[in-house]
Amino acid sequence: MPVVWEPFLLGPIFVQQGWNDSPFNVYPAKGRYMWRDLERLCEGYGIPFARPSRFPRDGLLAARVACLAKSEPWLPEFVRAVFRANFSEDREIGDAVEIREILDSLGRPGKRLVEQAQAPENKMFLREQTRQAGELGIFGAPSFVVGGELFWGNDRLEDALAWATSRRREARR
Amino acid sequence: MPVVWEPFLLGPIFVQQGWNDSPFNVYPAKGRYMWRDLERLCEGYGIPFARPSRFPRDGLLAARVACLAKSEPWLPEFVRAVFRANFSEDREIGDAVEIREILDSLGRPGKRLVEQAQAPENKMFLREQTRQAGELGIFGAPSFVVGGELFWGNDRLEDALAWATSRRREARR
Repeated sequence: MPVVWEPFLLGPIFVQQGWNDSPFNVYPAKGRYMWRDLERLCEGYGIPFARPSRFPRDGLLAARVACLAKSEPWLPEFVRAVFRANFSEDREIGDAVEIREILDSLGRPGKRLVEQAQAPENKMFLREQTRQAGELGIFGAPSFVVGGELFWGNDRLEDALAWATSRRREARR
Repeated sequence: MPVVWEPFLLGPIFVQQGWNDSPFNVYPAKGRYMWRDLERLCEGYGIPFARPSRFPRDGLLAARVACLAKSEPWLPEFVRAVFRANFSEDREIGDAVEIREILDSLGRPGKRLVEQAQAPENKMFLREQTRQAGELGIFGAPSFVVGGELFWGNDRLEDALAWATSRRREARR
C-alpha cells in the first residue's frame, strides 16, 4: 500500500482549537515533559536531537515547498532535512535563506523553488490542504489516515501501518 | 523493582493547566480522536470497552478509597474494578453506592471503607498526594515515575519499565 504525503499547516488547526501558540508553550508542565520525552525517544532511536533555542519556528515556507514537491521523490528527504535543521542543528528554518540552502544541499535548485513556492496558486494549494486536514479531524502532527481511520503521533505509526494491512480494517466495512 | 501505586486527583491538576473539564471535552476534535483511539486500543488488548454515557465522572470517592488501600494487596484489583465499572459497564462510579458495591464484590467491607474514606485525615492524605503529584511535574494520568524520570500515558508504560531496568538510567547518575 503506497504512502501519500500530504503537507498542511498546523498553525490554523491549532487556532481552531483555541491555541495561538504551540501547546508545548501553552501548558508549561506538559511542555517540559514533551521535550524530555522527545529527547528520550531520539536517544532510543539514535537520532541526534537538540532542543531548538526558539520554538515553534515558522514552518510556512517549508510547507509551501513541500506542496511543490508533493509528487516528487525527494519530498521525504526534504522533510527530514528541515526537521534535522530545526531539531538538531537549531537553524532558523523560517528563513528563506535556510530553506534555499537545504534545497541546494539536496541537489535541488533552491532559489527557483523558493520563488515558485510563493506563487499564488501554490499558496492556495497549501490553504486547501490545511482545510482538508481539518475536515479529516486532524488536530496535530504527524497524523496518519488509513481508510477513514485517523492515527495521531509518532507512537501510532506502527498501529497505522498495521491497520493498513490487517483484516480488522476489512471487517469494519 | 517494586511498583508503588500513588493515588492522586486529576481535577485539581487540570485546573492548574487552565482546564475545568476533561481535555476530551475542552477540545472536541482531539476528544473524538481520543475516544476512537481508546476503542481501537481496547480492541487490540481484548479489553471490553463502552464509552461512558457521562464523562468525566467524579473520581473523588474512588481516589479516597484508593488512599485507604494504598498499602493493601487489593488496591490494583479495586482500581481495575472501578475502571471496568466506568469504561465498560457505564456505572456511576461517582456514587457511594456503586463504590460500596464494587468493594463488597471484591470481598471487602464496602460500607465501612466508604465511611473511613471520608475521614478528615484520609481527605488530607489525598490532598497531599495530589500536591506531590503536581510537584513531580505530573499533568495527566496514568503517569509513571522512575528514579526522577516522568513517563506519561499507557503508551509509555513499557518505556518506564525498561527505564527501571536499563543501564541508561545508571549512566545518567
